[in-house]
Amino acid sequence: MAKPVSRAAAGRRSILLGVATTVATALFASARGQAPDPLASWSDGPAKRAILDFVRATVDRVPPEDRIATFDQDGTLWVEHPVYTQAMFALERLHALAPKHPDWKDREPFKAVLANDAAAMAKFSERDWAEIVFATHAGMSQDEFVGIVGQWLATARHPRFGRLYTELVYQPMREVMDYLRTNGFKTYIVTGGGQDFVRTYAQKVYGVPPEQVVGSSIATKYEIRNGRPELMRLPKLFFDDDHAGKAVGIDLFIGKRPYAAFGNSTGDREMLEWTGAGDGTRLKIAGAP
Amino acid sequence: MAKPVSRAAAGRRSILLGVATTVATALFASARGQAPDPLASWSDGPAKRAILDFVRATVDRVPPEDRIATFDQDGTLWVEHPVYTQAMFALERLHALAPKHPDWKDREPFKAVLANDAAAMAKFSERDWAEIVFATHAGMSQDEFVGIVGQWLATARHPRFGRLYTELVYQPMREVMDYLRTNGFKTYIVTGGGQDFVRTYAQKVYGVPPEQVVGSSIATKYEIRNGRPELMRLPKLFFDDDHAGKAVGIDLFIGKRPYAAFGNSTGDREMLEWTGAGDGTRLKIAGAP
Repeated sequence: MAKPVSRAAAGRRSILLGVATTVATALFASARGQAPDPLASWSDGPAKRAILDFVRATVDRVPPEDRIATFDQDGTLWVEHPVYTQAMFALERLHALAPKHPDWKDREPFKAVLANDAAAMAKFSERDWAEIVFATHAGMSQDEFVGIVGQWLATARHPRFGRLYTELVYQPMREVMDYLRTNGFKTYIVTGGGQDFVRTYAQKVYGVPPEQVVGSSIATKYEIRNGRPELMRLPKLFFDDDHAGKAVGIDLFIGKRPYAAFGNSTGDREMLEWTGAGDGTRLKIAGAP
Repeated sequence: MAKPVSRAAAGRRSILLGVATTVATALFASARGQAPDPLASWSDGPAKRAILDFVRATVDRVPPEDRIATFDQDGTLWVEHPVYTQAMFALERLHALAPKHPDWKDREPFKAVLANDAAAMAKFSERDWAEIVFATHAGMSQDEFVGIVGQWLATARHPRFGRLYTELVYQPMREVMDYLRTNGFKTYIVTGGGQDFVRTYAQKVYGVPPEQVVGSSIATKYEIRNGRPELMRLPKLFFDDDHAGKAVGIDLFIGKRPYAAFGNSTGDREMLEWTGAGDGTRLKIAGAP
């Protein structure tokens, strides 16, 4: 048994030991050519093991152009509570636009939103939500919409965490996206949310370029305004990229079956099923990291 | 004045001079770091100069992720006469399917096709063509359709040239696609033709992967057949990627404005207009190379 040491000395020794251990581990890893853990935030468990096994099994066998991984967004890559971020955008935008629409304060579903009537809003039908989305997402050009969303995301804060929404991204999912990209995979977001909404920040927040964001969309119309061509946003659903729509959207936009898919809800079931039905090794991760 | 030499000697000297000149030019080009002409099949003229000038002007200024070039297909990249290749596929497929549809021989527009009645076919309306397309392009899974198209393309021959359709590609356009890719551009096909049809051969024929083919599409439906998920092709237009639809399709699938666009017909007008309306240097090429 070692002699008792003073608390200060013991503390100092622990720190030094800690440093020495870290350095030794790093040297050892480096000597063996080991990279640091690419999924450091993941707890050691079946999901992490499945991802590591999947990459090992596919990286030498699947040609680079076929290495496709798809990710749901809401609840998978970033926070989805208390409501979807895009729903929050629509509600706040409705308040901002209300002065120009005096009839809204007497007309549902707008009336409930403007009165902050949470009980009424909890009972909104899909049709009510569609009205709110069209009132806030249509009637402007694509360029104008991008500007409006960008301005909102730069200032709006999550009601519980008080942070920008774009900061409420799950670190383990960033890691798995990076890890797959490092191994030659192309990462796509396949979201039930608005394609144009997500495209405004996907590059900056997830490293995913616009052409790799597949989502729901409203119709646009080509028009010449003041001598310039514009794409005007219409109050009409064009494509519903949710549930079976996710498999349809993957085929439509990518034209290849993913080797890996990540989701967290029933809206992702068909995407995972479609991915899993491919031959060879496929990875389906359902649920939070 | 030099002494006259025999024809044979003169001929030999010319050959040697020719060889020497070629070698000298090659050495000189190599010493100056010059590559061979990347657009060797193009005649020296305004179009070729515009392409070379465009690449010089953009390659150091436009970030790689924004270097997007879009190409119409029929009449721009490959032959479109006497009729679109895909129309030829539809007509030949109709003949192949006729034994299973005895009613077709008495029902227009099928009757005219099966009777090879060119005069009647020349008067087909858009609706007639839609009926022919749905009868030949729907009612099977995506996988089955890819197989049918692949088999047809491997054997069908152009009525005038007697060659496979995939061999009737314009060499100058192959060169400009390669040249742009060498300079970091991503090349997309944006076609009024069928997206799934073109995707079956675009990688092999043009070096363009499926996700970079934007085209017209019919609706698909996710279904479980014999325990396996399938995307079934429905007799219903989903997206018409022609005229204004080309600008809409570019925004929908790519989400970025092209820096260069190539077309040959009125169906490409809005794509060229949309491309040209971007800031900085943009390239619009309309017409055959």
